[in-house]
Amino acid sequence: MTKVTAQMSVSLDGFYAGPRHEGGDGWLESAEAAAFYRVTRWVINAMAWRERQGFAGGERDVNSDIIQETFEAAGAYVMGRRMADGGEVPWGEEPPFRAPVFVVTHRPRQTLERKGGTSFTYVTDGITSAVEQAKAAAGGKNVAVAGGGTLVRQILAAGLLDELELHVVPVVLGTGMRLLDADLGLGVKEGIELTPTRVVHTPDVTHIRYSVKGRAPLVLDDRGRGN
Amino acid sequence: MTKVTAQMSVSLDGFYAGPRHEGGDGWLESAEAAAFYRVTRWVINAMAWRERQGFAGGERDVNSDIIQETFEAAGAYVMGRRMADGGEVPWGEEPPFRAPVFVVTHRPRQTLERKGGTSFTYVTDGITSAVEQAKAAAGGKNVAVAGGGTLVRQILAAGLLDELELHVVPVVLGTGMRLLDADLGLGVKEGIELTPTRVVHTPDVTHIRYSVKGRAPLVLDDRGRGN
Repeated sequence: MTKVTAQMSVSLDGFYAGPRHEGGDGWLESAEAAAFYRVTRWVINAMAWRERQGFAGGERDVNSDIIQETFEAAGAYVMGRRMADGGEVPWGEEPPFRAPVFVVTHRPRQTLERKGGTSFTYVTDGITSAVEQAKAAAGGKNVAVAGGGTLVRQILAAGLLDELELHVVPVVLGTGMRLLDADLGLGVKEGIELTPTRVVHTPDVTHIRYSVKGRAPLVLDDRGRGN
Repeated sequence: MTKVTAQMSVSLDGFYAGPRHEGGDGWLESAEAAAFYRVTRWVINAMAWRERQGFAGGERDVNSDIIQETFEAAGAYVMGRRMADGGEVPWGEEPPFRAPVFVVTHRPRQTLERKGGTSFTYVTDGITSAVEQAKAAAGGKNVAVAGGGTLVRQILAAGLLDELELHVVPVVLGTGMRLLDADLGLGVKEGIELTPTRVVHTPDVTHIRYSVKGRAPLVLDDRGRGN
């Protein structure tokens, strides 16, 4: 069965990047980039990631295996417009996805075909439509929400996410863009319940995979007095 | 060697309670309480916690073992004033600490002796002094920062914390009081680095223990192109 999944590298305090860099130039010098580089540093030496980027070398370790598994599980992607715009040049002629990518945007644009199986289809009628189109294109594999964080959060808030894997990096950043920010539209005394299904522990990062159960009221208990 | 430790139950998005309830009455009906009950629910059935509260029964499982280990490792406690005030009545004549507790406060007050080895000493000259007094009283065991979250964060920000254990509960709350909030006083492109030293995985909660390395600049890497 096709699941809708997302995975993201976050700091211990939940940030996937520093405070948003405004304006075009100078991103590499921004605090946004410095924090993004820190929380994704564990990926760089992994053989499975390097192979997708066209780089040689790297370590085939548990982190590499998790990246490979993530790539292989995805039959199609859903992506935010900002991430798609930012990646278009650096990803080049043969982007690392090797699958159809559905970009949520307000600006219509013709589908962009790339080498190696990647295509970018621009969806202007909302996230539910983008997820449905990706499911139809996934060939029985999963639909992976590639990011950014805002899109992951929107898809979680809309009840469309089945599985969330966090790569928790042991650093506290204090500020920046949070994956699980306040705009989830939760009611007072309401939460989104999940079940942890797998935890993989390495010195550089803790991988925690959750299946999403859904919204539920927060209820009190008797603090153990009654039983 | 005496370490300064803290442990706290938090939601997946980092909250240890809901939005702060203002005013005296009605705490149990507040959103603060509803979220606090949710993130600490895993504790209630643990035999080691029940025993300290004077309750019978409970499960002796891995969660109970972690609570027992936490109690046994602490030779003294440091506590915030709000937590001490809130607990004074419910903890009663024989509080569950069974060790000296140093309360950080602005209001001088005579030391309160309780049964079972617990005492409350009110420290008015700051967190560093409270930690030093607790170290001297810990008899070679650890100093545990009992909470609340604001005090844990102040002690982390001051560079006084050696070890942090998070009990990560699989629920997203969206709002409330965050343990790792923005007032850590971190510079631009600066983080607090930690090392995960132990991860224990259960269906109800993921226990992650970190040793705190300290502040470090966030530096860029070459994204794998150069080696």
